[in-house]
Amino acid sequence: MVIVGEKINTSRKSIAEAVEAQDVDFISEAARTQAEAGAHYIDVNAGTFLDKEVDYLCWLVEVVQNAVDLPLCLDSPNPKALAEAIKHHRGEPMINSISLEKERLRALLPVVTSQPCSVIALCMAETSMPSTVEERVEVGAEIIRRLTREGIPLEKIYVDPLVQPVSVDTRMGTAVLGGMNQIMNGFPGVNTICGLSNISFGLPLRSLINRHFLALCMAQGLSAAILDPTDKQLMATLLSVELLLDRDEYCGNFIEAYHDGRIGASS
Amino acid sequence: MVIVGEKINTSRKSIAEAVEAQDVDFISEAARTQAEAGAHYIDVNAGTFLDKEVDYLCWLVEVVQNAVDLPLCLDSPNPKALAEAIKHHRGEPMINSISLEKERLRALLPVVTSQPCSVIALCMAETSMPSTVEERVEVGAEIIRRLTREGIPLEKIYVDPLVQPVSVDTRMGTAVLGGMNQIMNGFPGVNTICGLSNISFGLPLRSLINRHFLALCMAQGLSAAILDPTDKQLMATLLSVELLLDRDEYCGNFIEAYHDGRIGASS
Repeated sequence: MVIVGEKINTSRKSIAEAVEAQDVDFISEAARTQAEAGAHYIDVNAGTFLDKEVDYLCWLVEVVQNAVDLPLCLDSPNPKALAEAIKHHRGEPMINSISLEKERLRALLPVVTSQPCSVIALCMAETSMPSTVEERVEVGAEIIRRLTREGIPLEKIYVDPLVQPVSVDTRMGTAVLGGMNQIMNGFPGVNTICGLSNISFGLPLRSLINRHFLALCMAQGLSAAILDPTDKQLMATLLSVELLLDRDEYCGNFIEAYHDGRIGASS
Repeated sequence: MVIVGEKINTSRKSIAEAVEAQDVDFISEAARTQAEAGAHYIDVNAGTFLDKEVDYLCWLVEVVQNAVDLPLCLDSPNPKALAEAIKHHRGEPMINSISLEKERLRALLPVVTSQPCSVIALCMAETSMPSTVEERVEVGAEIIRRLTREGIPLEKIYVDPLVQPVSVDTRMGTAVLGGMNQIMNGFPGVNTICGLSNISFGLPLRSLINRHFLALCMAQGLSAAILDPTDKQLMATLLSVELLLDRDEYCGNFIEAYHDGRIGASS
């Protein structure tokens, strides 16, 4: 499982303050704790700053890559910010995200083909959010075709089936799980990724629901998740499921993480 | 999901003491708390008492069925104890368990065909514990054929794929999950059941591993589980996974259990 650490996002108050204050130490520490907790990519998002987003995102890229020896997940709704940030990045970043929305696709295709990178491809068409498994598969297949036609290999594509709240429609869990399964079977080698927290919107015990959703996604073959790797309960879910699915030789990762205090549970 | 409450087992010290003292109140309370927590069957097991097992098991049947209006899961390694206990049971019990071991099969077939009941069928052949998916499927298929040939309908059979520790062999999780999946696909209508705790033997954070194993089994279609329904974290797993798999209309069971204090999490 590829872990994308989600914490450096200016929608979080402490991060927004640190970015405005250009607090290198605070951001570096937020990067290091995620790296030590097991992140493979560090997500950086300054999307709340609108006018200053481009400058701030580029600054984050520099600061975070000085702090940790990891690739970043460049995260923005703004193609211009991604186009600038990728120039500051050393190595192969992950671009978060492209979709079938026309403007976005047109602006980002030149960016993601300008240098080697991985791409998060949202199952989002021009007009609406996907609802059913079928809609996710249809939009996912189309965006995969568009990206591979531009020369991006399947292995660099991370399809995000778009998680929506089960409190709004109880079919939203199975729509993601089924979509994920069909997309991975239909395009062997392609990756899948998702965020977790939308699934539990409007319900009690949200972290618990998110953890179990991660477990179910992993059973379908989820390749990567955007999450907080310093959340010891969530990481306990991730490592115990890898263990149960025979992806942890000699139970080594699980036992080591337990002894290092990186995973925990309340009982 | 059919929940079989596992707590009335004389391998637990407090239950053994209560059974020896013929403490009707203690046993009745252990039955009622499980029923209130959501059990559909109450397991009764006096197997530690050897000589007195038959009497004690029959006594447990009377006491528990006086306390709660639920069918019981009559649980013994001893066919004679099961043959006697079933005579004391009102309604349709679940018999725990039959297997392909010759003596056991010969002794129990007349019992399970003597009156309507459900039967737990262990994937256990004469000679050895199953190891691979294939062995589970082979033994499971054979025992299903033996039971249906005696007139027991598929819907009354609960196949137990036999959970063994991943600490001994990391393939043991996927062997159960794969076996469960293939048996249910091969015999549509048949049920599956399992205990959870063996999976985590020898590892830290056992309850956590057990909970995630339950989640993965449920994703494969597990019909029933033998567990402690008063364990609020385990029940939180069960109800959140039912919710995520679209088996909880309007999220009603989950929200109600939360408000009743029947489920919980540490964060």
